Order: sequence, then C-alpha cells, then structure tokens
Amino acid sequence: MKALQDKIIKDGKVLSAEVLKVDSFLNHQIDPELMQQIGQEFADLYKDAGLTKIVTIESSGIAPAVMAGLILGIPVVFARKRKSVTLTDNFYSAEVYSFTKQVSSDISVSKDFLNKDDVVLIIDDFLANGEAAKGLLSIVEQAGATTSGIGIVIEKGFQPGGQALRDQGHRVDSLAIISSLENGKVQFA
Amino acid sequence: MKALQDKIIKDGKVLSAEVLKVDSFLNHQIDPELMQQIGQEFADLYKDAGLTKIVTIESSGIAPAVMAGLILGIPVVFARKRKSVTLTDNFYSAEVYSFTKQVSSDISVSKDFLNKDDVVLIIDDFLANGEAAKGLLSIVEQAGATTSGIGIVIEKGFQPGGQALRDQGHRVDSLAIISSLENGKVQFA
Repeated sequence: MKALQDKIIKDGKVLSAEVLKVDSFLNHQIDPELMQQIGQEFADLYKDAGLTKIVTIESSGIAPAVMAGLILGIPVVFARKRKSVTLTDNFYSAEVYSFTKQVSSDISVSKDFLNKDDVVLIIDDFLANGEAAKGLLSIVEQAGATTSGIGIVIEKGFQPGGQALRDQGHRVDSLAIISSLENGKVQFA
Repeated sequence: MKALQDKIIKDGKVLSAEVLKVDSFLNHQIDPELMQQIGQEFADLYKDAGLTKIVTIESSGIAPAVMAGLILGIPVVFARKRKSVTLTDNFYSAEVYSFTKQVSSDISVSKDFLNKDDVVLIIDDFLANGEAAKGLLSIVEQAGATTSGIGIVIEKGFQPGGQALRDQGHRVDSLAIISSLENGKVQFA
C-alpha cells in the first residue's frame, strides 16, 4: 500500500535494526485519514469473504479495525490485555508474550461476542514474532469460529511470525512488509 | 443524542445502581457505524473551535476519537496507561485512579505530540468520577496547550465528575447523560 509505505518512510523512526517507531501516526498519535485508507484496503481485500466480525487487540489495532468494520458494515471486537472486573469467567483467553515489553499477558474476549457462526478477520498493527496473532487465532478457535485471514498494517518480514503463520496455512495480508531496517534505513519487500 | 440513547436502552446492561455495561457496542465489541455518528456529533459541536488535536485514553476512547478526528481532519493522540519501553523520559504523565478497577495507573503522552500551540478536544467513553478527564486535562496543561472542551460518550450524571469539571469552568459535552440506574432501569437527564 503506497500511502502507507510513503508515511513509514516520511514519519517512521528506525531505532535499531529491529525496531521501527511509528508513534506519530499509528500507535500513539493516530492519523485518522490514513487509518481510513488502511480500513478501505482491508475491506477491499476481504469484501467477498463473508466476514461477520473483525477481531483485534487493544490498543493500536482498534483504529484500523474500526475503519475496516465501518466500510464492511460489521462489528469489531477488541481483545483486552488485562482481565477487567466486569469480565468474569465468561471469556476466551490466551497468553501472549510481548518481545518488545518482555512480559507475558493474558488477552481475553467475552464469549458474548464470538461464536461458532462467526467468520473473522483478525487485524493488528504489527506482525513480528506473531505472538499476538497466535493468541487471537487461539481465541477464535476456542469460540469454534472461522478465521478468514489476518490483516496486518506493518509486517517485519525479517522476523519469523509472518512466515510461520503462512506455513500453517493462514491467509496473511500485510499492507507493508519491511524486509530490513539495517543501517537506519527502511527497505520494503 | 438519540441514536446513542436508543442503543443504551436496547443493548446496555444495568449491572447495579452504579454500573452500566456497554460492552456490546462501545468498550469491548464496537459498533463502527454508531462510532461514526458519535464522531460526527463531536465534530459538529467543535467545528468552529479551531481544534488542532484530539486527546483520548486507551482503549475505549480511541474509536469515537478517531471518527471525530477523521471528520475534523486532525490527528488523535491516545494517552497510554502503562509506560512503554519505547517511551523514555520524553513524556507528560498523570496518575489516574480507576474506581471500577480499584487501581491507580499512570497515563502518559509523548512530548512529541502535544505542544503549547495545540487546541485540544479531550474525548473519553465514560465520565463518572472524572478521574481520567482530570488526568488528561493535567497532561494538556503540562504541554502548555489549550483544552477547548471535553467530549464524553456516556456521562453518569449521578456521579460527581461532570459537575466538578463544569464548576471548574470546563466545557463538557456528554452525548448521553444518565441520571439514574436505580431498579435496573436507565433514565436519562
């Protein structure tokens, strides 16, 4: 997706050969117009998939997911990273390890909002090691629902998550795939 | 806002005289179309305010804030509830006590995304005791920026936050104000 690649080049900050900071438009400050374009892209890719629901994870997945949901006319469910006091035992959960934050956390989705008839598009902001996607896939599976595909805003193609998910037979659509951050320079696949 | 009141009546769950659960359309599952209507309402209310930025707090404020930001053509910044490893000392922060979760947490916004020239609309999903709004007001103030107003999706009018903020001279626009949840019934102000 060219508008996204241009934005990454213009406003992304390469902090190391592994870390790209996109806090200025995706995961701290949000560019709503770009999110709409991203949502449109996901909607175009999945318009014939018979989706009933988008599942994402708080917080940075919410903006692109809601834009895609608006265009597709379906609800969005975001997995929570901590158990809320208003969520009792009525939820699906999975453990997700964050390499960035170096902690494991539970993510959970209420059983009220996902069931065996759902056809789901999983959306997330980043795909690196694939931990969050694996947790979301597990939650959709626990519900007996179908995952149609995984829509990613930025995939770090030099980390193993995307390949592993594709090898398992999952459809993965990444709007920008970064092949390298070496020497402070973003290169796309 | 009638569409919001109707949705609260139809899908909100009164758990007690103090707790309204709106997990099915606002803070776990999200209704994107309703979020767009809410965003439009905030945009209409503040279209002449000279806003440069919307500030909200993860996670449930993000969807309505991004829709308002899209219509107004301005960026959204969401305060983070935990310090990320990629946020070093370059941020404004405030302590927020959650009566629902009975914990205090720090919220923070990078100094890169808020400065003295900003005119800010604060958006949040709920206003009850006003703790989150106070934290966001503090962050805007630390930046030397101006808060034009506080846009709230659902205000619990029987709790003191809204009155306290208005008494301090803040403009508060709540799209639905609940006067009572007594006897399992939602009443609007």
